[in-house]
Amino acid sequence: MKEQLTLIKVGGKIVEEEATLRRLLDDFAAIGGHKLLVHGGGRSATRLAEQLGIESRMVDGRRITDAETLRVVTMVYAGLVNKNIVAGLQARGVNALGLTGADMNVIRSVKRPVKEVDYGYVGDVERVDATLLADLIARGVVPVMAPLTHDGRGNLLNTNADTIAGETAKALAPLFDVTLMYCFEKKGVLRNADNEESVIPRLDRPAFEALTADGTIAGGMIPKIENALAAVDAGVKRVIITRADAIDGRSGTVIL
Amino acid sequence: MKEQLTLIKVGGKIVEEEATLRRLLDDFAAIGGHKLLVHGGGRSATRLAEQLGIESRMVDGRRITDAETLRVVTMVYAGLVNKNIVAGLQARGVNALGLTGADMNVIRSVKRPVKEVDYGYVGDVERVDATLLADLIARGVVPVMAPLTHDGRGNLLNTNADTIAGETAKALAPLFDVTLMYCFEKKGVLRNADNEESVIPRLDRPAFEALTADGTIAGGMIPKIENALAAVDAGVKRVIITRADAIDGRSGTVIL
Repeated sequence: MKEQLTLIKVGGKIVEEEATLRRLLDDFAAIGGHKLLVHGGGRSATRLAEQLGIESRMVDGRRITDAETLRVVTMVYAGLVNKNIVAGLQARGVNALGLTGADMNVIRSVKRPVKEVDYGYVGDVERVDATLLADLIARGVVPVMAPLTHDGRGNLLNTNADTIAGETAKALAPLFDVTLMYCFEKKGVLRNADNEESVIPRLDRPAFEALTADGTIAGGMIPKIENALAAVDAGVKRVIITRADAIDGRSGTVIL
Repeated sequence: MKEQLTLIKVGGKIVEEEATLRRLLDDFAAIGGHKLLVHGGGRSATRLAEQLGIESRMVDGRRITDAETLRVVTMVYAGLVNKNIVAGLQARGVNALGLTGADMNVIRSVKRPVKEVDYGYVGDVERVDATLLADLIARGVVPVMAPLTHDGRGNLLNTNADTIAGETAKALAPLFDVTLMYCFEKKGVLRNADNEESVIPRLDRPAFEALTADGTIAGGMIPKIENALAAVDAGVKRVIITRADAIDGRSGTVIL
């Protein structure tokens, strides 16, 4: 039987404010078994860019990453945010190891081709090499992954943290029973967007299709759940969509 | 017989300019056997601090590290400089892994006690845990270490790169035949400070004592060589003092 691995993705907002970060680190440290954290850091990057007089340009929520912006996100994601999480977890007895996709060649990506938009130094994940990562996890190391990858030709690339979490979960699925947890601002997938208590506890593909057909699930939730279902199809045992303050796994929507 | 490990420390100047960095990465990639790189990054930190309106204060060449400065050096050392080196080495077929002392709890330090000077968030190395590090090295991973450690209580600490190199070399000495190479601006320890060709090829303790007694070796070279001899006493096989453009090991002063 494979060992359990919980892979949690949290957005920038949670890790960039001291109180929410402290709460997250406490909750994360309390999770039993193997684990891995993927984090964002966009707000701090925007703030640093502002201080340096660099304009932040976003298209559909994605950051246009020119050379100067790449320097900023490298400093913020791989330096400030990542290493503070690592030090905070070490203080809680968690043997954290901060990584970008360049480290140990864990995630190689390709620079996104220019179509209508030139996103600049943004990477689309090509290959996750989980061999060394899995060995370290088995030995009790807890990887903390920043949303940066590399192209194998010396360039770092800004990469969506949800994608990093999903692709890493899939790559680790043959080796562990992976629970992938996406944290966002709601308690889960809601039956009624105005009622935080209307969380749908379980969703499989037939249920998802029925709930999109009748309009219960709509908008930005659809691609999120599509991604989750694709991860399950690729061997991830379950995906949980919930809030960062509910990573104990007792609430949220389980997709399987 | 133990396997060879070459541990190289380079200062900030080398890794912060594109041409010298490229040369260093090429030369470093060409070194056979196991290896490890420790780097500085002070100039970039000073520049970023300046851009952010943070004053850089130095005492005896050491940076006074208040909370704001700690954020700056964390971004620059662990983010910008470290990850660019890692990506550059990956492009050269070297399986680099960027680390601070907080990662995998490799180097724990204590905040330097306040005496005449309050250095702020500066760490004195307390303990190097080389177990996981040595395993990774044996598997072909090449650690790239930024000059930051942690206190085990959640704080990162700015830490002298020479010290990190020396302490890491000592910790790895029981497991590998370690050659520790300190790069600085001269080709080696010079018999005549004005003649770059007057490199003393070999130094042991008796020779060092004779050359300090007659004034050939003086000033800042004395503590540098004292450190090197201490590393040799602690099991490091040899220490080489040379320039970053001579890490092929064919020049420089060998201390043993």
